[in-house]
Amino acid sequence: VLASKGHEVVSWTTNEHLASVLKRTRIQPFLPNQVSQGNIHITTNLAEALSGIDMLVESVTAAGIRPVFEQVKALRVPDCPIVLTSKGIEQSSGSILPEVAVEVLGESIRDQTGALSGPGYAEEVIRGLPTSVVASAYDPKATMQICDTFTTQTFRVYPNTDITGICYGGALKNVIAIACGIADGLSLGWSARAALMTRGLHEIRKLAVANGSKAETLGGLSGMGDLCMTCSSPTSRNFRFGKLIAQGYPLKAALEEIKMVVEGIYTCVAAWELAQKLDVPMPITEAVHEIVYGGMNPYAAVEILMKRPIKEENQ
Amino acid sequence: VLASKGHEVVSWTTNEHLASVLKRTRIQPFLPNQVSQGNIHITTNLAEALSGIDMLVESVTAAGIRPVFEQVKALRVPDCPIVLTSKGIEQSSGSILPEVAVEVLGESIRDQTGALSGPGYAEEVIRGLPTSVVASAYDPKATMQICDTFTTQTFRVYPNTDITGICYGGALKNVIAIACGIADGLSLGWSARAALMTRGLHEIRKLAVANGSKAETLGGLSGMGDLCMTCSSPTSRNFRFGKLIAQGYPLKAALEEIKMVVEGIYTCVAAWELAQKLDVPMPITEAVHEIVYGGMNPYAAVEILMKRPIKEENQ
Repeated sequence: VLASKGHEVVSWTTNEHLASVLKRTRIQPFLPNQVSQGNIHITTNLAEALSGIDMLVESVTAAGIRPVFEQVKALRVPDCPIVLTSKGIEQSSGSILPEVAVEVLGESIRDQTGALSGPGYAEEVIRGLPTSVVASAYDPKATMQICDTFTTQTFRVYPNTDITGICYGGALKNVIAIACGIADGLSLGWSARAALMTRGLHEIRKLAVANGSKAETLGGLSGMGDLCMTCSSPTSRNFRFGKLIAQGYPLKAALEEIKMVVEGIYTCVAAWELAQKLDVPMPITEAVHEIVYGGMNPYAAVEILMKRPIKEENQ
Repeated sequence: VLASKGHEVVSWTTNEHLASVLKRTRIQPFLPNQVSQGNIHITTNLAEALSGIDMLVESVTAAGIRPVFEQVKALRVPDCPIVLTSKGIEQSSGSILPEVAVEVLGESIRDQTGALSGPGYAEEVIRGLPTSVVASAYDPKATMQICDTFTTQTFRVYPNTDITGICYGGALKNVIAIACGIADGLSLGWSARAALMTRGLHEIRKLAVANGSKAETLGGLSGMGDLCMTCSSPTSRNFRFGKLIAQGYPLKAALEEIKMVVEGIYTCVAAWELAQKLDVPMPITEAVHEIVYGGMNPYAAVEILMKRPIKEENQ
């Protein structure tokens, strides 16, 4: 997106082999049909990548944030907007990812730090299909810088003032996507999936609000939007992982089948720990946790969910 | 559902042929694989159907509510809970359907009148697949009566105090389902669909709130839940209708292809009129209205949507 707008992009990876493939072919192995357009320089040298930048865009994994930003700090603390695009919660601290970046790089970078979240498949974005996402930074000025930098005629970036909310939405939806995949693997039908998505968003919203988010943020592009895409599309990793689990694959075999990182299995642990600490009932997250880590039979989990006492819908 | 719980059910239809088919086969022509179980008596005699009932369940169409309740009134005003299950807005008045029932049968029935809404495919419900829906009546006592009467081990009915909200959610989602069908017909991808669902729910919520609903209701089973199911499943009539329109079918030909009532095309008119009256921006509803009734090219509509100025997400 940025290169297509004429920005000079430097892409850093630690993987020497990947770097040479990218340099030679300009094709990301995970997106075999897309040749990157525009001015993109590939490097494995972080110091080179950080030199003279106007914006730093992070795209590693939730677990990678802390070690990568430690490396960045050792070289220089950037004095430009820092945009996080990974979706997850740090497992050890339960923190949202921009908070981890601030913790590592120091309070001085808070006002320039933000996140991009919401429903957009890389392949569709590159093909120029209409996509709408959301951005939020700790400071509104940085939010608008991120929106203006990324927005194109086919990629709309809505500003939002609730950075905590958009990060929880993007992270926690992956747990519900696993639940929907499990339901699909059990052939429970469309009605069950719609109920899982809705009640899933309900419990996500409760946890996010207990952590300082605004309720309405979770009903937006990061949260509901993400959920709509991840829980319906057979190409979502978390959804596919859930489906494999329901079909009887052990955890390790399911992960080997997917090949890429399934963030939801880490987010699930962090979310379930947070939920217990804050006393927020999260029956769907609990069920996913029990199925993935406790070996609970998925049918038994469905039965437990269906037998819970029914409360007023919004409570 | 009710017959499976042991209730004595009387099913009334004006269609003599359908009544005789149902009596003979116990199979609804639209659900050819399902033989109805339990005590269900079929009749074309409304007086017989109304005699000695403990609950009246309406399942006609939005346009049928007023004439059918006029017939009911001419015979007797029921003194039991009245549950509306149609999803729509009355086109002439813009009213929610329980309001139309109260208008026809009189204020004396308000406290006993309610609605059932949310994501449940008839076929899945009958097969006993897990389903969660929502009920609300003007009086909380009636709400609980509806929940208790309908809830089974596989069909969960959540109570909600906001009858206006659940009715708007169930009705307006059909317009967004048409929009998603159009996007699918144009092969716009998963990201575009997720954005349409999210921004669609955003505008639905604004209209519903302007009419006295609570914002959170629309994020629940009627609203978000309905939307998740209707906009993802190829079996949804409104979604299929939108897809046909995008593929170039004229309005009439698309309706002939679907065969059943496509409530969204009526709701779209009512919603768009209400939106203009109340000055609520509803760009997606407006686009569907223009495509279906104004002959606008769907690609042109997408371009207009993508060129709108970007505002703060929750405004």
